Amino acid sequence: MDNLYAQRIESLREMMRSRDWDAVVITGSDPHASEYPAERWKQVRWLTGFTGEAGDVVVTLDHAGLWTDTRYFIQATRQLEGTGVELHKTRIPEQVLIPEWLQSRFGSDDIIAVDGLCQSASDASGLAARFNVVSIPDLLGSLWTDRPAVPQTPVFTVDPGESRFSKIDWIRGFLADKGCDGILLSALDEIAWMLNVRASDIEYNPLVISYLLITRDQVKWFVLKQEVEDPDTEDTFAQLRDEGVELLPYEDVAMELSGYEGRLYIDPASLNWHLYSQLGGDVLEGGSPVGLRKAVKNPVELDGFREVHVQDGVAMEKFLYWLEKSLAADKRITEWDAAVKLGQYRSEIPGYHGDSFETISAWGAGAALPHYITPMEGAPVLEPRGLYLCDSGGQYDHGTTDITRTVPLGECSELEKEDYTLVLKAHIALETAVFPAGTPGCRVDAVCRMPLWKTGRNFGHGTGHGVGYFLGVHEGPQDMRQNLNAQPLLPGMLITDEPGIYREGLHGVRHENILLCTEAPETGFGRWLRFESLTLCHFDTSALVPDLLDDEEKAWLNSYHRRVFDTLSPLLPPDVAAWLEEKTREI
Amino acid sequence: MDNLYAQRIESLREMMRSRDWDAVVITGSDPHASEYPAERWKQVRWLTGFTGEAGDVVVTLDHAGLWTDTRYFIQATRQLEGTGVELHKTRIPEQVLIPEWLQSRFGSDDIIAVDGLCQSASDASGLAARFNVVSIPDLLGSLWTDRPAVPQTPVFTVDPGESRFSKIDWIRGFLADKGCDGILLSALDEIAWMLNVRASDIEYNPLVISYLLITRDQVKWFVLKQEVEDPDTEDTFAQLRDEGVELLPYEDVAMELSGYEGRLYIDPASLNWHLYSQLGGDVLEGGSPVGLRKAVKNPVELDGFREVHVQDGVAMEKFLYWLEKSLAADKRITEWDAAVKLGQYRSEIPGYHGDSFETISAWGAGAALPHYITPMEGAPVLEPRGLYLCDSGGQYDHGTTDITRTVPLGECSELEKEDYTLVLKAHIALETAVFPAGTPGCRVDAVCRMPLWKTGRNFGHGTGHGVGYFLGVHEGPQDMRQNLNAQPLLPGMLITDEPGIYREGLHGVRHENILLCTEAPETGFGRWLRFESLTLCHFDTSALVPDLLDDEEKAWLNSYHRRVFDTLSPLLPPDVAAWLEEKTREI
Repeated sequence: MDNLYAQRIESLREMMRSRDWDAVVITGSDPHASEYPAERWKQVRWLTGFTGEAGDVVVTLDHAGLWTDTRYFIQATRQLEGTGVELHKTRIPEQVLIPEWLQSRFGSDDIIAVDGLCQSASDASGLAARFNVVSIPDLLGSLWTDRPAVPQTPVFTVDPGESRFSKIDWIRGFLADKGCDGILLSALDEIAWMLNVRASDIEYNPLVISYLLITRDQVKWFVLKQEVEDPDTEDTFAQLRDEGVELLPYEDVAMELSGYEGRLYIDPASLNWHLYSQLGGDVLEGGSPVGLRKAVKNPVELDGFREVHVQDGVAMEKFLYWLEKSLAADKRITEWDAAVKLGQYRSEIPGYHGDSFETISAWGAGAALPHYITPMEGAPVLEPRGLYLCDSGGQYDHGTTDITRTVPLGECSELEKEDYTLVLKAHIALETAVFPAGTPGCRVDAVCRMPLWKTGRNFGHGTGHGVGYFLGVHEGPQDMRQNLNAQPLLPGMLITDEPGIYREGLHGVRHENILLCTEAPETGFGRWLRFESLTLCHFDTSALVPDLLDDEEKAWLNSYHRRVFDTLSPLLPPDVAAWLEEKTREI
Repeated sequence: MDNLYAQRIESLREMMRSRDWDAVVITGSDPHASEYPAERWKQVRWLTGFTGEAGDVVVTLDHAGLWTDTRYFIQATRQLEGTGVELHKTRIPEQVLIPEWLQSRFGSDDIIAVDGLCQSASDASGLAARFNVVSIPDLLGSLWTDRPAVPQTPVFTVDPGESRFSKIDWIRGFLADKGCDGILLSALDEIAWMLNVRASDIEYNPLVISYLLITRDQVKWFVLKQEVEDPDTEDTFAQLRDEGVELLPYEDVAMELSGYEGRLYIDPASLNWHLYSQLGGDVLEGGSPVGLRKAVKNPVELDGFREVHVQDGVAMEKFLYWLEKSLAADKRITEWDAAVKLGQYRSEIPGYHGDSFETISAWGAGAALPHYITPMEGAPVLEPRGLYLCDSGGQYDHGTTDITRTVPLGECSELEKEDYTLVLKAHIALETAVFPAGTPGCRVDAVCRMPLWKTGRNFGHGTGHGVGYFLGVHEGPQDMRQNLNAQPLLPGMLITDEPGIYREGLHGVRHENILLCTEAPETGFGRWLRFESLTLCHFDTSALVPDLLDDEEKAWLNSYHRRVFDTLSPLLPPDVAAWLEEKTREI
């Protein structure tokens, strides 16, 4: 057995045999139900070699399976080769999810071992109702000898227009309403928002791995890992202590919870099962109130977002100018080179902390994979024809960006132009939508997709997601997807507008702006909401089929382009500004 | 105390005092959870005088309240005057529904009396979890001395392309899948569909008040009321007996259920609480499978629908011709006269059994009330200006129709024309929609509403509902409303397309066709669905503001008008056909 991953799975099976376990479930998440876990919790990758961003594993004595969704079928098939791990497909009609699959094999007496730290209480309780589930924190710890530690990056303070005092006051009001004495937060973006702190414990996510307990008279932050010795962190910690926040070791949260006697509010969708099972006192379960309040940006946050979008737009225009001119000069540029160049332009912006996710820089057929990863070594060279797609964003002191532009690098096929234009039509349909207050995103989604649907085209990913304020680039509770999410869009919320078309082996198109939900004038028929585009960067008009756009759509594009030029050109070098004037010429 | 209803409520309170009841809940429904109950079960009307189609009553020793929704606020306020009954508003943000209201007044020891026959098991069990609920079948029976009997109209057989045998076979397959021995149907349209029988026990609804028990080897229909003596019923009953259906007295169902020992499948949303509490054996609760299968029409039913829509269109065109010519000749026509005339044209159609609901015939400000009831006495006279709205439909052997046309009776204001055109734009947006297989109606709704939303206009009712095949004009499980209903639209389902604009005191506009959901050609992006209009009747183009329609919308209207003219004109008298040619001229 040469395969490294097959060997690791066999070691796990030895442990299973010695402990009489019938199955082991390993999730791709961390103790905080994070979408993107730190290296320490990439247990699925360590065990199977699969590097996709979503995947859970079940190992039994005679089977090892990886459950992942449509986005990763091709990648998983390739990466699992030789490991003995079988791919179980999810988000397809005939899917058999892990609980059902286990049920077809095991009964209530069989022992299923899970890493209780990396399973949410709500998921684990579903398993516990059917099987004899044992919770083993850090289940793979004894096998994974060089496992990374819990990350510990410098912690610093941000000023997003509302003090910790005010936020803690607000949540104490919530606790009083619910008749609770305390609330435990374990979602990392909720903790960062609540305490106005940031760090870089997770790549692309400016978060601090920690837990936060707020009671009627105490605030306990379980954040201390080993020794922290950097001035930023010390300043921030000192300031927090001055403000009455007690700082405690990260590991002590379990003990604290087991001894806590008040009535505790917890969200079983984000609290892990290990901690959940430690809870000693009375508990009220419900959705976290922090997510919704965090999603509605305050005026300071909105000013910050507007400002970073001007700066981010400047970087994007410099990048697109460089790209066009370099190719015209026959320079050899790979997808990777382009991504690096864009990162350089962003890094010149004051307050830049890094990218908000890994840049997707993809030419031709690569762009047909919505979650393409640009390879550092041997990346495809950009050729002066067809479409190039770039999906990227930055983390800044005053906001987070997420933008996709698709640009023609030369001659395009009729199909490329048609797809390019129809996706822009879909994008504009959402930009110009107006809807009654109280409408959830899922009810508006079809307005964006209809221009594609009418031509028999569609895309398999969501149309939009919320965006954090110098926090995760994906943020709830609002979204705009095919699933029915009843959360209304509220004034002050952000949502991306990112329709696409992907043709395997040919090309991909996506046009993405971040939209701010705002009030429209009230009428006799009620209160109305609409969108304002925060993202500022032109759409290349040379690949358009103008006949596919109606007058209203052309008017929107011309007006948006006027705004892009007027706002960005004073901040651009003269040659780039002159080029942008051409690029934003009326159609 | 002169008021009749105040007296009745006082009699009820005497009964409450003598039995120690703290509150009585009376619903507007019947033992079959019907949307429209027969006279016998209009208990809310008898007790309070309120005649709206949706309303529940709670009487305590010191309060009497009627809960009803936005549609009936004005009517309820008027009708409740002097009764001592207070209006509790529902479908508004600050609504307090009956269970919450009761909870603010009563505890678990207080006795709440309900008519268990007229409360669904799912609703009643919510109350029973909080209070001491007693179920009194026919609670008002001893006070309502001249209460109508259970209706008993002639029963006849229909042939909708699938035999009872086949339907019963299918449901026995369902029972086997679920590991059940029997299923009890109490929803009247499900029973009529299952047995291919019709009657007219409820106004506008060709149903037989009965229960149906289907087990693995028996079919028991609890339908016999007193003596039935008419040849149709005798023939149908004889035929059913020949086919092995056992006919039993309506009242015997409770006894049958209490003695039934197999595992029974029941739908707690339609089964009443009285029967639910009689169930003796093992029960599996779930949604009824009949509703979904009934909603997908078979080819024979679709042929029937197409044919009755041609005939119904002929009646509509004759009516609209008569209306225009009569007004041009200065004839005095009231809203009521117009409704009667339309009914006469429909009654000339072979297979006509009556209207499918009470015709809404409303001119001017009357049309601004979406659920306007045209008064028989003193109906407004139609004047040769402004907009007239007519929402009507027929019940035929081979289908059910439901159509709304709004027509200008002369000079219209700019606002009337704009509203008229925008509602047509919304109507066309849904007619021309294409969407992926698997999409629920609630995800398509905004495509219809967006042309209104963009101008700050909207309507408060649903956009569409299913339609029965010579059954109820409202039918689930699909719909297109603001609530999130995950039921996908399926090929063979019908859905109405009925956007509107209503301006209090001014005018109302609604344009309604029945659409059939059909397959569109498959593409590389998957399976697609679209609509085919079953309704055939022109839209008056004289009130249009052509500039508000784009080329695609005009093309749809011209093509629809060509189809209307080509299909209907051979069946119309020459003068009407010539007039229709003018009415359907290209714009």
